[in-house]
Amino acid sequence: MKMSRALIPTLREDPKDAEVISHKLLVRAGFIRKVAAGIYTMLPLGLRTLGKLMALVREEIERAGAVEIQMPLVQPKELWTSSGRWEFYGKELLRFKDRKDQEFCLAPTHEEVVTELVKNEVRSYRQLPLILYQIHTKFRDEIRPRFGLMRAREFLMKDAYSFDLSEACARQSYQTMYSAYERIFRRIGLKFEAVEADTGAIGGSLSHEFQVLAPTGEDKIARCNHCKKAWNAELAPVAKPAFVMPESPLRKEKVKTGDAATIEEVAVVLGLHPEQILKSLLIQTERGPYLAVVRGDRILSLPKFKRSVGVVEAELAQDLTGLPEGQIGPIGQAWPVVADYSVAGIQNGVAGANEPGYHWVNVSYPLDFEAQTLADLTLAQEGDCCGVCEGPLSLSRGIEVGQVFYLGTKYSKPMEAVFLDADGNKKPTVMGCYGIGIGRTIAATVEQCHDDQGILWPVSLAPFAVHLVLLDTRQSELALLADSLYSALMAQGVDVLYDDREERPGVKFHDADLIGLPLRLTIGKKYKEKGLVEIKARDASFTEDVPPEDAGKRIHAFLSQQGMANG
Amino acid sequence: MKMSRALIPTLREDPKDAEVISHKLLVRAGFIRKVAAGIYTMLPLGLRTLGKLMALVREEIERAGAVEIQMPLVQPKELWTSSGRWEFYGKELLRFKDRKDQEFCLAPTHEEVVTELVKNEVRSYRQLPLILYQIHTKFRDEIRPRFGLMRAREFLMKDAYSFDLSEACARQSYQTMYSAYERIFRRIGLKFEAVEADTGAIGGSLSHEFQVLAPTGEDKIARCNHCKKAWNAELAPVAKPAFVMPESPLRKEKVKTGDAATIEEVAVVLGLHPEQILKSLLIQTERGPYLAVVRGDRILSLPKFKRSVGVVEAELAQDLTGLPEGQIGPIGQAWPVVADYSVAGIQNGVAGANEPGYHWVNVSYPLDFEAQTLADLTLAQEGDCCGVCEGPLSLSRGIEVGQVFYLGTKYSKPMEAVFLDADGNKKPTVMGCYGIGIGRTIAATVEQCHDDQGILWPVSLAPFAVHLVLLDTRQSELALLADSLYSALMAQGVDVLYDDREERPGVKFHDADLIGLPLRLTIGKKYKEKGLVEIKARDASFTEDVPPEDAGKRIHAFLSQQGMANG
Repeated sequence: MKMSRALIPTLREDPKDAEVISHKLLVRAGFIRKVAAGIYTMLPLGLRTLGKLMALVREEIERAGAVEIQMPLVQPKELWTSSGRWEFYGKELLRFKDRKDQEFCLAPTHEEVVTELVKNEVRSYRQLPLILYQIHTKFRDEIRPRFGLMRAREFLMKDAYSFDLSEACARQSYQTMYSAYERIFRRIGLKFEAVEADTGAIGGSLSHEFQVLAPTGEDKIARCNHCKKAWNAELAPVAKPAFVMPESPLRKEKVKTGDAATIEEVAVVLGLHPEQILKSLLIQTERGPYLAVVRGDRILSLPKFKRSVGVVEAELAQDLTGLPEGQIGPIGQAWPVVADYSVAGIQNGVAGANEPGYHWVNVSYPLDFEAQTLADLTLAQEGDCCGVCEGPLSLSRGIEVGQVFYLGTKYSKPMEAVFLDADGNKKPTVMGCYGIGIGRTIAATVEQCHDDQGILWPVSLAPFAVHLVLLDTRQSELALLADSLYSALMAQGVDVLYDDREERPGVKFHDADLIGLPLRLTIGKKYKEKGLVEIKARDASFTEDVPPEDAGKRIHAFLSQQGMANG
Repeated sequence: MKMSRALIPTLREDPKDAEVISHKLLVRAGFIRKVAAGIYTMLPLGLRTLGKLMALVREEIERAGAVEIQMPLVQPKELWTSSGRWEFYGKELLRFKDRKDQEFCLAPTHEEVVTELVKNEVRSYRQLPLILYQIHTKFRDEIRPRFGLMRAREFLMKDAYSFDLSEACARQSYQTMYSAYERIFRRIGLKFEAVEADTGAIGGSLSHEFQVLAPTGEDKIARCNHCKKAWNAELAPVAKPAFVMPESPLRKEKVKTGDAATIEEVAVVLGLHPEQILKSLLIQTERGPYLAVVRGDRILSLPKFKRSVGVVEAELAQDLTGLPEGQIGPIGQAWPVVADYSVAGIQNGVAGANEPGYHWVNVSYPLDFEAQTLADLTLAQEGDCCGVCEGPLSLSRGIEVGQVFYLGTKYSKPMEAVFLDADGNKKPTVMGCYGIGIGRTIAATVEQCHDDQGILWPVSLAPFAVHLVLLDTRQSELALLADSLYSALMAQGVDVLYDDREERPGVKFHDADLIGLPLRLTIGKKYKEKGLVEIKARDASFTEDVPPEDAGKRIHAFLSQQGMANG
């Protein structure tokens, strides 16, 4: 592609709304442009990288036996009512009415449509197993779209759905897709970890997230250095802490603490550490409100709370009390109390008094209050021990780029997607579903692959393999050579981005580093002086001056080596 | 692809809601399934045909110099306000609010987004010309979605937008895209006609539609057998008719006609032909209402009306009068009258009396009323003469699969998409836009290419080239041969659909004819008897029994011959 005829608008300045490096670089290098919050246009370079990723994903997903279809984005309410999600799915499900006043939504995921399809078209066990997939636009009305392609509202997703005869076969499909995901992220060249995860709004009983390791990741990952298991920190089992009780319990006392609202403010007012203070959170569930109590230095995990209490819906309902988190407490109130193990070690601690401006001090467990349930309720954090083997947990940050779910009959039962087995009995199909965020994978790749000058695309996702830079368009000898190398490389099947613009060498080198193609092929004064052109790897792993006729061979050697490294 | 592992649900019965053959066959052959009115899932076969068409379109559009991008479907109101279309675009523009109560729409077309993009990123004449295109989902909230993929609400479209320095350059881009469109439809193998057309909601001053000829087409096409020009009938210039005035004008008289509401009913009540009755239609425009009057046997063309009156908005506003069309008339009312040339020949005719139950008889033009404008206002019909050369017009029906528009500065001016020319002056870019309905092209192909048994795919769009039919899966000798032919053909780059299902031969042949791949390769008893397999063209142009080792060669020969025929 010739830069003079494409639309590759590079920028010198970071966009104002960009917080993370991938967002900054993808905008500055001319891959994407914002149309509205969380809504982007893919420019030519961005779309080419999307295309590379989609081809790679298709290859591995089809190797796993999946067949591609395409389901609509606009979906009728009735479908979502039949699964029960029209009410259950939160505000991320964008609902609207058409001109005939019928209700529709923009699909954030496609379990309903695909289950209805299989319900109508699959009758016999002989048609199973079946794995259907698509790569298509989705919409999630995120409350805070941000980070460019990382948390967009309109985005591309690869979603696959498996339908099986039995639980055992469905677990086999789950494993097949899990392996395909490992191959995909390995072939891209990413450092990633597959971790056990919550099933969220999709549901089901087992799930793994594929997390690309990056300090800017929104997710926390916990890994046990001993048993080698890994989890999203919100699910990682934390061993019960061993407590040393240094003091005798004193009699509890109500003290004035004024405006102190957060745990940190209460700690300052009373001259204590947060871990001596109880954090109490009111959680609304489908069975009514619960009071979740954790130690002030820890963070409640809603997924762990749901599992411990046995509910499917849980959200913070602090506003029901009219009090900030630091002022609510478990003493003398009516809601059932569910406490984290760490609370059991509290002696002479502090709890909100459930009235503005006051706290109880010298609160001890279980002397002053008792929990209905005592459980592992908090996000794993550095220093915690593994709940499986007591080994040390290490924490890191990740970007969730894919997730696989074992759904069982969560959708097939209510939607009556049944088949006739070999004995003529009706049975619901057993399902799994599997997603990869296409745009988010690209952003995650940039988070891992960049330097101060710009992006360092792995060959797998580079929009082009080679950046052909003609340094002076006015010198016809150089221009002719560049033109002929451009044609020759393309004829050899190499993707080339040709900088044929009338720009200064500094601008061209700057843009080439920013865009970050794996190889740069420069035609400049070395050719006039010595008959040589320069091949340089973007990661500076090598620079070589070669005669133009050898350029193709050298480039092929580099690319196939890189390909093999991740193949 | 093995049929046993794909989802290819063929049906024996036509779907109840299907009126046209392409809709019936695409559903019955397992290409598409309805999710809601005008909203479909593309099944594996349908998606493969989509993929073939998209690849062909991409090749020709990129050969014409266009660069691919991808713009969002969900677009903010502000963009559409800036072009003036938020108000102007009718109910086909589906508008809704997001969770933050901000207004958005589902894009039916992308002029706003692309113009805003070019406004922000193109500064200098050196960046022009630029042609951007995408193949992406669109949504139009059709009042009456029907005919399957032909008039869907959610659909795939290839849309391209050209940006030029000057009118002359823009007309060049228009011509380039026009030629690319001709190549695309020729390569598919369609019988089509490019006709001059109205610019509708897109706007601009020149437009051509690419119409696939089919009796089920919703559009009428007029072609002059003499000057060879062709138009959408709603725009085809009709020569002024020559009138013979046989009688002397009589004095007009009001008569009672009772409930007669339509022209046909009035004709029956008065014992006259529709051509002796005036049809009066109230049209609302941005300059207020007009009364359009045409002869009772003719159909008003709104595009012609708009051009004659010089307005951009025009819609029927019959309800303003409270009277049916047969009862409105031009005599004694206040709206400006615009009449078709045919009205000038009315002598002793009939007109509505603008009161229920009455008509004027013996109405003559211009004795009893006069038109502000007398013009060519009706759809061309069989028997009309060409308004350019007076030659005879022939009428046929077409399916509009593509349209090209010369937009000029309709969008770039209000949205201020300007560039600096070589002298440093700011100028608006001069635009064109170019659409191809991807799904509709597929439906149109089926309308042209089918027989009583099913579809006859041209090689260009066939989901697979060869249907490999194993007649008896229980005979391992045959099954082994089929398996090895399947692998061998795929290794040679031939797309094969392999019917490996445990079904009776009758079912397999029936499905193969229904699905309609260009070639069928049958493995059956001829192999056991004589060592031969059968190659048969779907269009029955040949059948040949060959040894299995020759099958690949014969198939390649057939496909390359077909390819060349349309290449």
